[in-house]
Amino acid sequence: MLEDNYASRISSDNRIVYLNGKKVDLILEEPVFKGAINKIKSYYRLQEEKPEVHTAIDNNGLRYAISLMLPKSQEDLQKKRISYKEVSELSYGMLGRTPDFISSAIAIIASNSEILGTSEKANFSQNAINYYEFCKRKNIFVAHAAINPQIDRSKSIGEIDNKYSGVKVVRETDNGIIVSGAKMIVTLGAIADELLVFNMPGLRTGDEDFAVAFSLPVGAVGVKQICRKALNHTELSRFDHPIASAFDEIDTYLILEEVEVPWDRVLVYKDVGMSNAFYDKTNARNHTGHQGIVRGLTKAEIVTGTAIKLAKNMGLDKFPNVLEKLGAMTTSLELMKGAIHLCEYTAKVDDKGVYSPNFLTIQALRYHFPQWYQTMVQTIQSFAAGSMLAVPHKEDFNNHNASMLLEALNGPLIDAKERCVLLNLAWDLSGDGFGQRQQSYEFYHAGDPMRIAGMHYRDYNVEICNKLTDEIICDSLI
Amino acid sequence: MLEDNYASRISSDNRIVYLNGKKVDLILEEPVFKGAINKIKSYYRLQEEKPEVHTAIDNNGLRYAISLMLPKSQEDLQKKRISYKEVSELSYGMLGRTPDFISSAIAIIASNSEILGTSEKANFSQNAINYYEFCKRKNIFVAHAAINPQIDRSKSIGEIDNKYSGVKVVRETDNGIIVSGAKMIVTLGAIADELLVFNMPGLRTGDEDFAVAFSLPVGAVGVKQICRKALNHTELSRFDHPIASAFDEIDTYLILEEVEVPWDRVLVYKDVGMSNAFYDKTNARNHTGHQGIVRGLTKAEIVTGTAIKLAKNMGLDKFPNVLEKLGAMTTSLELMKGAIHLCEYTAKVDDKGVYSPNFLTIQALRYHFPQWYQTMVQTIQSFAAGSMLAVPHKEDFNNHNASMLLEALNGPLIDAKERCVLLNLAWDLSGDGFGQRQQSYEFYHAGDPMRIAGMHYRDYNVEICNKLTDEIICDSLI
Amino acid sequence: MLEDNYASRISSDNRIVYLNGKKVDLILEEPVFKGAINKIKSYYRLQEEKPEVHTAIDNNGLRYAISLMLPKSQEDLQKKRISYKEVSELSYGMLGRTPDFISSAIAIIASNSEILGTSEKANFSQNAINYYEFCKRKNIFVAHAAINPQIDRSKSIGEIDNKYSGVKVVRETDNGIIVSGAKMIVTLGAIADELLVFNMPGLRTGDEDFAVAFSLPVGAVGVKQICRKALNHTELSRFDHPIASAFDEIDTYLILEEVEVPWDRVLVYKDVGMSNAFYDKTNARNHTGHQGIVRGLTKAEIVTGTAIKLAKNMGLDKFPNVLEKLGAMTTSLELMKGAIHLCEYTAKVDDKGVYSPNFLTIQALRYHFPQWYQTMVQTIQSFAAGSMLAVPHKEDFNNHNASMLLEALNGPLIDAKERCVLLNLAWDLSGDGFGQRQQSYEFYHAGDPMRIAGMHYRDYNVEICNKLTDEIICDSLI
Amino acid sequence: MLEDNYASRISSDNRIVYLNGKKVDLILEEPVFKGAINKIKSYYRLQEEKPEVHTAIDNNGLRYAISLMLPKSQEDLQKKRISYKEVSELSYGMLGRTPDFISSAIAIIASNSEILGTSEKANFSQNAINYYEFCKRKNIFVAHAAINPQIDRSKSIGEIDNKYSGVKVVRETDNGIIVSGAKMIVTLGAIADELLVFNMPGLRTGDEDFAVAFSLPVGAVGVKQICRKALNHTELSRFDHPIASAFDEIDTYLILEEVEVPWDRVLVYKDVGMSNAFYDKTNARNHTGHQGIVRGLTKAEIVTGTAIKLAKNMGLDKFPNVLEKLGAMTTSLELMKGAIHLCEYTAKVDDKGVYSPNFLTIQALRYHFPQWYQTMVQTIQSFAAGSMLAVPHKEDFNNHNASMLLEALNGPLIDAKERCVLLNLAWDLSGDGFGQRQQSYEFYHAGDPMRIAGMHYRDYNVEICNKLTDEIICDSLI
Repeated sequence: MLEDNYASRISSDNRIVYLNGKKVDLILEEPVFKGAINKIKSYYRLQEEKPEVHTAIDNNGLRYAISLMLPKSQEDLQKKRISYKEVSELSYGMLGRTPDFISSAIAIIASNSEILGTSEKANFSQNAINYYEFCKRKNIFVAHAAINPQIDRSKSIGEIDNKYSGVKVVRETDNGIIVSGAKMIVTLGAIADELLVFNMPGLRTGDEDFAVAFSLPVGAVGVKQICRKALNHTELSRFDHPIASAFDEIDTYLILEEVEVPWDRVLVYKDVGMSNAFYDKTNARNHTGHQGIVRGLTKAEIVTGTAIKLAKNMGLDKFPNVLEKLGAMTTSLELMKGAIHLCEYTAKVDDKGVYSPNFLTIQALRYHFPQWYQTMVQTIQSFAAGSMLAVPHKEDFNNHNASMLLEALNGPLIDAKERCVLLNLAWDLSGDGFGQRQQSYEFYHAGDPMRIAGMHYRDYNVEICNKLTDEIICDSLI
Repeated sequence: MLEDNYASRISSDNRIVYLNGKKVDLILEEPVFKGAINKIKSYYRLQEEKPEVHTAIDNNGLRYAISLMLPKSQEDLQKKRISYKEVSELSYGMLGRTPDFISSAIAIIASNSEILGTSEKANFSQNAINYYEFCKRKNIFVAHAAINPQIDRSKSIGEIDNKYSGVKVVRETDNGIIVSGAKMIVTLGAIADELLVFNMPGLRTGDEDFAVAFSLPVGAVGVKQICRKALNHTELSRFDHPIASAFDEIDTYLILEEVEVPWDRVLVYKDVGMSNAFYDKTNARNHTGHQGIVRGLTKAEIVTGTAIKLAKNMGLDKFPNVLEKLGAMTTSLELMKGAIHLCEYTAKVDDKGVYSPNFLTIQALRYHFPQWYQTMVQTIQSFAAGSMLAVPHKEDFNNHNASMLLEALNGPLIDAKERCVLLNLAWDLSGDGFGQRQQSYEFYHAGDPMRIAGMHYRDYNVEICNKLTDEIICDSLI
Repeated sequence: MLEDNYASRISSDNRIVYLNGKKVDLILEEPVFKGAINKIKSYYRLQEEKPEVHTAIDNNGLRYAISLMLPKSQEDLQKKRISYKEVSELSYGMLGRTPDFISSAIAIIASNSEILGTSEKANFSQNAINYYEFCKRKNIFVAHAAINPQIDRSKSIGEIDNKYSGVKVVRETDNGIIVSGAKMIVTLGAIADELLVFNMPGLRTGDEDFAVAFSLPVGAVGVKQICRKALNHTELSRFDHPIASAFDEIDTYLILEEVEVPWDRVLVYKDVGMSNAFYDKTNARNHTGHQGIVRGLTKAEIVTGTAIKLAKNMGLDKFPNVLEKLGAMTTSLELMKGAIHLCEYTAKVDDKGVYSPNFLTIQALRYHFPQWYQTMVQTIQSFAAGSMLAVPHKEDFNNHNASMLLEALNGPLIDAKERCVLLNLAWDLSGDGFGQRQQSYEFYHAGDPMRIAGMHYRDYNVEICNKLTDEIICDSLI
Repeated sequence: MLEDNYASRISSDNRIVYLNGKKVDLILEEPVFKGAINKIKSYYRLQEEKPEVHTAIDNNGLRYAISLMLPKSQEDLQKKRISYKEVSELSYGMLGRTPDFISSAIAIIASNSEILGTSEKANFSQNAINYYEFCKRKNIFVAHAAINPQIDRSKSIGEIDNKYSGVKVVRETDNGIIVSGAKMIVTLGAIADELLVFNMPGLRTGDEDFAVAFSLPVGAVGVKQICRKALNHTELSRFDHPIASAFDEIDTYLILEEVEVPWDRVLVYKDVGMSNAFYDKTNARNHTGHQGIVRGLTKAEIVTGTAIKLAKNMGLDKFPNVLEKLGAMTTSLELMKGAIHLCEYTAKVDDKGVYSPNFLTIQALRYHFPQWYQTMVQTIQSFAAGSMLAVPHKEDFNNHNASMLLEALNGPLIDAKERCVLLNLAWDLSGDGFGQRQQSYEFYHAGDPMRIAGMHYRDYNVEICNKLTDEIICDSLI
C-alpha cells in the first residue's frame, strides 16, 4: 500500500523528465526507471513487513520512517543503523540515495533549526520543523540537489559568467522567491517526490544570490530534469548483466526556470554564512554520513562475496597471493565495522538529548574506503581476467548451440550457466559502466578525498600527538 | 581496392558467427561489426595511400604488407615500427589485433621454420614457409586463436575432464587431421580471413592431443564463432560515446567441430615440446611484442591527450597535484619510448641475418605498462569526476532544451557541446565497459603480470648485480 | 621500590649476556641497556604512582599488575587498554615488548589451562596456573622466546639438519627436561626476569622434539643470550638523536645448552598439536594482540605529531597535498581507534566469564597498520627531505660557531636548536636504523602480512557476503 | 700518482672543516673521511689504469678526465657513459657526487658560456672557459654548493629575514666580490679541491643579491664547512656493516664569511635571470643528469643483486610472489637502460656540434626511479625481515661462542659467516641510516619529484596526444 501510494504520487504530478532527449510521459512504464522504482517500492514495503525495524512511533502515536527518527541514545543510533543496513541490502549497496539518506538529514535539521533563524518574510526555523512533520506524515521520498555544475573549478559560483552555475534568486514576491538555474547529479531526482535544494559548504562573499536552501515538489512548475545516459542495460537480461540490467540510480541535471518557492518552503535566503552552515552546523552530514558508511559496507560485502566465489570456482583459492587479496577484503570489512561502531559510540549529544554520530570517524572511513573499494574491484578484475570477456549471450543457451556450450563451459565446481552469470556479475561490478560509476560514486560522492583528508587533519584532536612530540623535543633540547 | 577485396572475402565465405544468440547473415551489415571492419579497411587503405611506409617489395618484385617483412637491420625494425605506429593510430591503439600483429609472427615463424621439422605425413617447416608466401601474396588478415578456455586453472588441459578445454586432435586421415574443441578470446576472429590456431607455451606431458598448431580459413566447415556481448553502443551516437560507439574489437569463443585441416596447413602435430616452442623459440613473440608495445604507446597518448584537455578546460591545470599527475603520464610515455628504442637497438640477429627485437626489453615494459595505464585511467576519472555523470544526451541538444543547455554548459574555455563530447570521451576511456576492457586487455593480453615478472627475472642477465654483491660480501668476510 | 627490586633482581642472577662479542658483567651499567632498563623501571613506577590504573586487587587482597588481570567485562578490557596506553606512552610506543605484553598472555593461558592437560610426569595445566600466581606475586618481567631461527624457510624445523633450528628436548630426567637449541629475536630478553619459551603455531608432524613450552629464569644455568648490534647511539646526545639515543629494545639470539627445566615449569612436552594450540587456542594472542594494537596507536601518534610539527615549522602546511598527507595520518589514527574499540566491544566471553578481545578485529588492523605506518614514515621523509641531512652536531653549538649557527638556522616559526632537534627526531623516526627497525617490527612482529591476510579470510564470517552474491546469481540464472 | 697529488692537495690547504663540533686537523687521517677519500683516490687511479676509458686527449695533446670532454657524437656520449658506469661501480653507485658529476657540467657551461655574457668588471663568459681549462689541466675535484638552506619554504630567499638563507653579495671591490651566507648539503665538499657555488633555477625578482655563481678553492679564507653527523660506522667492521662502514658521502653545511672571490672567478653577478639560466640554459643539468642516471643504475644493480642472493639463500626463490618481486627489479633495470639509451640517442646537437643528452628523458626516469628504488629497498626488507635483526657481532665469532654460532647459523646453501654478512648488507641497504640516506638522496637530489613531474608535462611535446584527442572529439561533435 505504501508502495502503491508512492507509485501513484510520482506518476500523477506532471513532472518533467527528459531521457535520451525525449520527455518521459509514463514514469512508471519507462524501462530505464523501472528497476530503481522497484527498489524504492521495496523500501516502502520493508516498513510494512518489518515495522519494528524500519519505523518509529512519535508521541502522537504516528508511525513514521525510522530514518526520520531523532536518536536519543546510542541504542537509537544502532536501531537506525540496522534499518539502514537492511535497506541498503535491497540494492546491494548500489543505490546511494535511497529515501533514508536525506530523511536522516531532514530530521536533524529540524531539531537544530534555531540555527536557521527568521527574517521579516519567513521563519526559516519553523519552516524546517514544519517540513520535517510534513515528511513524517506523508512518508515521502525526498531527493536532494546540492552540487553546482562545475563550469570552472578555479572560480566561485558568483564569479562565473553563466547563470546556470548554481540556483539563483531572481526576485522575491509576497508569496515567495523566484529562482532559476541548475544543479547537477540529482540522484534519483526523476523518481522522488520532492527535492531539497541547497549548497554544500564553500560559498564565498559575492555568492549571496546563490545562497539559498528550500524544498519543492518535483512536479512544481518550472522544474525540469534531464537524465544522463542510462547505465542499466534494459535490452539485456539479468543473465547477461546480473546487476547492471537490474536498475540504474539515474542522475539528473536539474533546471529551474523561474520557479516560485513559497516563503514557507524557504530555509536559507541570500545568506552565505547560513548556506555554508546548513549542511554542516545542523549536523546533517553526520547523519547522512552514518547512512552512507553503513550502505558502503553492504557494497563492499557483495563485492567481497563475488571475489570469494570467483576464487573458489575458478580454482584459484589455493594460491597464497589470492588468499592475501581475499584477506585484504575481509580485513577492510572489519575495519569498516570498527569505524561504524566508533562513530556511534563516540556520538555527540546535544542539549536536546539528540545523538549525532561522530563526523570525524565517518570522514576517516570515507578517506580510506574508496581506496579499499578500488582494490576490491581490481581484485575481481584480476580473478576473472580474460574469462569475463569470453561469456556467450543468454540467447546462445537458447539455440542449437546450447548443449554444446553447456558442456564446453562446465567446470568441476560450477556448471556452465552459473559460471556465466558469475563472470557477468564480475564484469558488472568491475568492468561495466555500472560498476565504474559505483566506484566513482565512492570516490566523489562525499567530496574530493584530498579535501576530506585535509579537513580531517584540520578538525581532528591531535593533542596527544603534539604532547608526545613536544615531550621528546623538550627532553632533547640543550 | 585492397579494402574492397577484403570486404568481399569476408562476406562471401559462409562463415558462421553468432552474435547475441543469432547467426549473423550479412557480416558487412552488422552494426556491431561495422566499426571494426571500417578500421581494417582503413588498414588496407594505408597500404595504398602510403606504400613507402606500409609495404615492402621482395626479390621477385612483389609488393606486400611491411608487417610481413623480415627485418635485416635495425633500420628495418624502425621502418616496421613506423608502420605499426600509424596503423595503431587508426584505432587510437584500441584495436590490439590489427592484421600487422600476427603477420609479424607469420614472417619470423617461416624464417625459423627449421625448428618445426617434418614428419612422414607433413613437412611442417615447408608448410610454414608456404603459408608465409601465401599471406604475402594474398594480403590476408589472419587472426589467432591461442588461449584455451580457463575451466580450472589448477589443472593442465589434458587433465580437465571436458573436451572443450582446448583444440584437440580427434583423428587423422590421408588428407589431414580432424580437430574439435574450443579457444577463447579470438580477437577480431569474426571478421578475419584466416585463423592461426596454436597454444601459448605451458603444455605438459599428457597434453599431446592438444599439442597442435595450424591455419585454416574462418569459413571452413565446422568452424563456429560465438561473440561475447558487444561493448560498442551501436544505438548511440559518436557524441554520446565518442570512441565506445565507434567500434568494438569483438572477441569470440571459437568452436571447432570435426574440422578437417589438410596436412599442408599443419605446423605442429601432437608434440608438446614443439607446441611450447612454436611461439617462443621461433621468436614470434619478439615481433608481436614489438607491434604490441608500439600500439600501447598510441593508447597511452590518446589517454594522456584526454587528461590534458580535461585539465585545461575544467580549470584544473594550475594545481600542483594535477600537474604532477600529467607529468606522471608524460614521463611514462617517455619511458615507453626508451623501451621501444632499446628493444630495437639490442635486437638479436640470427644466422640468417634477421633481426628480432629484444624480448626481455618488451617484457620489462609489459610488466610496468599496465600499472601506468591504470594510473592514467584513474587520473582521467579524478579529473572528470562527477561531471562525467552529468552529461545530457545528444538528442537533448536537438529539442527545445537545446538553447538553454548550450548556455548552461558553456564554459570560459570550451563550449557546451565540446565539453560534453570531452566528458563523454573521458567516460568511454575510464568508466565505460569499452574503456575497462581496454584496461583488462593491457593487464592480461600478454599473460599474467606476476608471471611476466617471474620469467623476466629467470631470463635476465644479472651478472653485474651478482658481481657487485659478491664483491662487497667478499670484502667483508672475516 | 618496585623498580629497585627489579634492578636488583636482574643484576644479581649471573645471567650470561654478550654484547659486541663481550660478556656484559654489570647489566645495570651497560650504556646500551640503560635506556631500556629505565623504561622498565618507569613501568614499575607507574604501578606505584597510579595504582588505580595499573594494578588490580585479587580476591585475596593481593595487588598485582593489571596486565595479569582476567577481564570479566568490557569495562575490564577498557581498563586494561587504558593501562596499556599509558605504559606505551612511556616509550612512545617504541618498546614493543614491555612486561604487560606477555603478562596478558600468562593470565589467559592460566585461565584456559585445561587445554594443556596433564601427563604422568607433569600437570601442565596446574603448572600454568601456578606460574600465573607466581608472576602476580613476584611482579616479574617475563620476556618470551618464540621465533625459531630462519635457517631455511622452505623446510619445517624438524627437517632442517641443524640442532639450533629451534629449542629441542635432548632427554628427560626425574627432575625435569633437558633442552638445547636456539631462538631468535628475544626482545628485551637481556633485561627480563624470566623467559617464556614456546613455538608459534605451525609445527608439523616430525617436529615433536621441538614441540615444547616452558618458563625459566634468565639466569638459569646454560642460558646464554647474544645481542644483535645496538641501534641506540650511546655515544651521542639526545640533541643529536632525540629518540634513537634514548633506548634500544635489544633483541637477543638465545642459546640454550643442556638447560634443565624442572617438571613444574613445563607447559607443553613433545606434543605438536599442543604446541600449536598453546598460543592460539588459549586465546593468548587475543590479549597480546590487544596490547599490541594499543601500543601501535601511540607509535602512530608520535609519528603524526612529528609530521605536524614539521609541516608547521617548515612552512609547508598551506599546501593541499601536505594537508592531505596529514589527513591520511589522522584518518588512520581514527580507524585504529575504531578497531581497538570493536575488538573490545565484540570480545568473546568464555564459560568462565573471561573476556577475550576479538582476534579477527586485531588481525584486520595488523594487516593494514604496517602499510599506514610506512606511509607515515614516508611522509616524514618527504617533509624533512634534505634538511634532515643538514643538521650540525650538538657540539657545533658549543664552540665558537654557535652564535653563527643560532642565527643561520633560525626560522620565523622555530628557533635554531629546536629546529635541529625536530629534524633529528624526523631522522630517528624515518631514516635512522632505530626508525627502520621500528617499521620492520610493525611489518613482521605478528607474522608475515601475507599470511595474516590469508588467515583472516579463512576465519572470517563471510556469510552475508555469500548470501548477497548468491541472491543476485540466483535471480539471474535462466 | 694522480691520487697522491689529490691527497696532497686536500691535506695542505688549511681548509676549515668541523666534524662533531671539532675542527678536523688532519683530513687524511679522519676515520669518517677515509672511506670516501679512498673512493676518490680510486677514481683517479682508474684514469691511470684505463686511460682509454677514463681520459680523453685534446687538440693540444693534453690528456684529461673524460668527464670534461665535450661530446661531439653519440659515440662520445656512450664513451662518457661507460666511464661514468665504471666510476659508479667503485662505490656501488652510493657516492652521488664523484668528480665526474660536476665536471660534466663545467665542460658544457664553458662551451655555452656566451650565455653568461660580460660586464664592465668581468668577462663571465671567458671566466667559464678559463675555469674549464684550469680544471682540465689540474685534474681537480670540484664539488658544488647549490642548495639554499630551507628556512621557510613558503618564501623566496630574498624575503627571508636571515642572512644565511643563501650566499649573498656583501659588496664589491676592484679585486672581486665579497660574499657571505650559507649553502646546505654540499656533498663531499669537505674533501674536494674546489667548490662551484651557484643557485638552482627558481630565484625571483628581489633576490638579486643572492643571484651569483662563482668558483673558489675549499681552502679559501672565510670558507667553513660543518659536517652533518657521519653515517658510516667507523667503530665497526666491514663484517658488521659491509657497506655502511666503508664510507660516507659526508654532506656539509657551508658557511662563507666575507669571502673574497676574484673577478676572474665570478660567473654570474647579481643577475636573477642569469642565475636561473646558469644550470638550465647552459645544458649543465643534461650532462650531470646523464651521469646521475647511469650511477643510479649501478645502485639499483647492487640492490637487485642483494635481493637475489637473499632469495636464493633463505630458501625463498620458489614462491611466485618472491619471483614477481625479483622480476619487478629486473624489469626496472631494463627500463632504466632504455631511458639511458634514449637520452643519448635523442641527444640535442648545438651549433658547435656538441651533443647534450635529452633532459626530458632523464627527468622521466628521475620521476619513476625513486619509486622503483623504494620498492627495491622494501623488497630487501621483506626478504630479510626479522633475520636482519638477529645477527651476532663480528667479535662473537672471535670468542668461545664462535664454534657454536658457526654451527647454529649454518644453512644448507650458505655458511654462517656469509649469511651474517649478507644479512648485514641487507640491513645497510634497507634499514641502516646509510641506506635510508641513499633512498632520500634518490628522491630529492634532483628536486621534489612532484615538481619534476609538473615540469616534465610543461616541457614535453604532447602534440601527438593532442592531435589524437582532437581528432576523436572533432569526429564526434554534432
